[in-house]
Amino acid sequence: MNYDMIQAAAQRLNGKARVTPLLSSPFLDDVAGRKVFVKAECLQHTGSFKFRGAWSAISALDPDLRAKGVIAYSSGNHAQGVALAAREHGTTAVIIMPADAPKLKIENTRTLGAEVVLYDRATEDRDEIGARLARERGLTLIKPFDDPLVIAGQGSVGLEIAQQAAEIGISKAEVLVPCGGGGLTSGTALALDQLAPDMTVHPAEPENFDDATRSLVSGEIEQNAQSAGSICDAIITPSVGNITFPILKRLCGAGVVVSEDECLHAMAMAFTRLKIVIEPGGAAALAGALFHSDQLDGDTAICVASGGNVDSDMFQTALAKYGI
Amino acid sequence: MNYDMIQAAAQRLNGKARVTPLLSSPFLDDVAGRKVFVKAECLQHTGSFKFRGAWSAISALDPDLRAKGVIAYSSGNHAQGVALAAREHGTTAVIIMPADAPKLKIENTRTLGAEVVLYDRATEDRDEIGARLARERGLTLIKPFDDPLVIAGQGSVGLEIAQQAAEIGISKAEVLVPCGGGGLTSGTALALDQLAPDMTVHPAEPENFDDATRSLVSGEIEQNAQSAGSICDAIITPSVGNITFPILKRLCGAGVVVSEDECLHAMAMAFTRLKIVIEPGGAAALAGALFHSDQLDGDTAICVASGGNVDSDMFQTALAKYGI
Repeated sequence: MNYDMIQAAAQRLNGKARVTPLLSSPFLDDVAGRKVFVKAECLQHTGSFKFRGAWSAISALDPDLRAKGVIAYSSGNHAQGVALAAREHGTTAVIIMPADAPKLKIENTRTLGAEVVLYDRATEDRDEIGARLARERGLTLIKPFDDPLVIAGQGSVGLEIAQQAAEIGISKAEVLVPCGGGGLTSGTALALDQLAPDMTVHPAEPENFDDATRSLVSGEIEQNAQSAGSICDAIITPSVGNITFPILKRLCGAGVVVSEDECLHAMAMAFTRLKIVIEPGGAAALAGALFHSDQLDGDTAICVASGGNVDSDMFQTALAKYGI
Repeated sequence: MNYDMIQAAAQRLNGKARVTPLLSSPFLDDVAGRKVFVKAECLQHTGSFKFRGAWSAISALDPDLRAKGVIAYSSGNHAQGVALAAREHGTTAVIIMPADAPKLKIENTRTLGAEVVLYDRATEDRDEIGARLARERGLTLIKPFDDPLVIAGQGSVGLEIAQQAAEIGISKAEVLVPCGGGGLTSGTALALDQLAPDMTVHPAEPENFDDATRSLVSGEIEQNAQSAGSICDAIITPSVGNITFPILKRLCGAGVVVSEDECLHAMAMAFTRLKIVIEPGGAAALAGALFHSDQLDGDTAICVASGGNVDSDMFQTALAKYGI
């Protein structure tokens, strides 16, 4: 896993993924006490950065293998990214989802062209169903984060940050990235290590799901005690990966841990000041820059807003609490 | 007023205004029955396209005159655009606003560096106050739309649409633009007439404020019967301008008139599918493409989302009614 793979992925993504804008507002700068830029990856196809990794992995497959289709386990952003990337490659995606997943997520994934296979969480084994389908149909598994090609795709976010920051004269910054399994964080860190070595990447996580932050302290992969129960559903992976962690350990600064309320507050401020929709987990980095500025150095923070797939009820909750 | 002025304005805006993305979603295409692209001008500095026209006008001023400051009448998007553009030119902006304007708008305009002069709508004459200040201090009036330099700045939206559409292989489209005084609509039409002659611009307006649509039918500038009372406050100008109308008349297709509820519905769909925040008036064009598709031809619609300055209560109303 190295920088060259990110460059190669970026070439495959060229014209396929959106180059998402780097947004800012003097009002956010005032709150944070330094210049704040937001990499609006919520504006990516399917509403999150996951499209990049999915495209990177699928585009690198041997064409014969790719023609047989791909498979993924997800009810969230990864599912939609894989579904659309597969469809645009003219192949099929099988997405394994729990039968009790929100109906809208199932429908959305189907509308993006995927074949959704539902399983009963209580009586069926997801991995067994997936392995059988993969074997019978020759499908290739697209992992959510712990895969070099997926990390390389997410790393294209780092390439864009380096370039967009350079265009406005910024070479030094604290870069906050919402962190679940660490695919986006490690890929971004690898890209910036090469292109903007004066930038330091910090994983941002919600309270009670701060495994990456603790792992960076202990030097070993730590687990979260809980596996559910956060509004930040996009980034509550049990632990970082075996491929992503060594990269985080080598390149990242300390993690920043934010509360759920701070994520809701950051969502409301992004609504008012940037006119973008961020989901709770995707707002963790901005929440860190706005409300934990004492943990950062320097005069510039760059925050990745990793996704915007939030339902309207949750968004209304954020606005009712913190909107102006 | 011609295309060369737009090109010159775009050069002055280069690196100053954001190049806003052209967004799309297969879900919106399904609703509209054709490909739909949204030019997300809500992501522009100060949350609307108005920054472009303000920058264009202020940047073209003689430096000695500019140093004395500028003045504008507005409590809305034009005020914020002029305030920020003036500050970034190192000069002062005086913004004349009614004393009963929303406190937040007054505060925002001040935070952007402007000197806000309040007047009492019942007892004072806005124009008299403005004329006196302009005379005493040598301030230059920045008009909201009926000025060639302002139109030229807004026309840079059209330049970007032509270029971004060409990059994805689109040269023919129906282009819908929210229309108040017609600055954005006429500038966009002038740019596309030159660069993408197979695109047709249509003004989009709310019911009861459809003066541009009626003016295009009658061939003369028509007035709106009302001057207030719409949630689409950004685009309820009494009539189009003496400079903008001849351009609209020469270049535009028929207007599209939408209901307020359709604007709220379009706002909710842009939230869910594009992850952007649009204000009611800024959603008029998207509402036209989504809900009046029978009035359009061809397989592609491009809608300008002209602004996103909506308060959280109004946005919650849209989500409560049409969110998923």
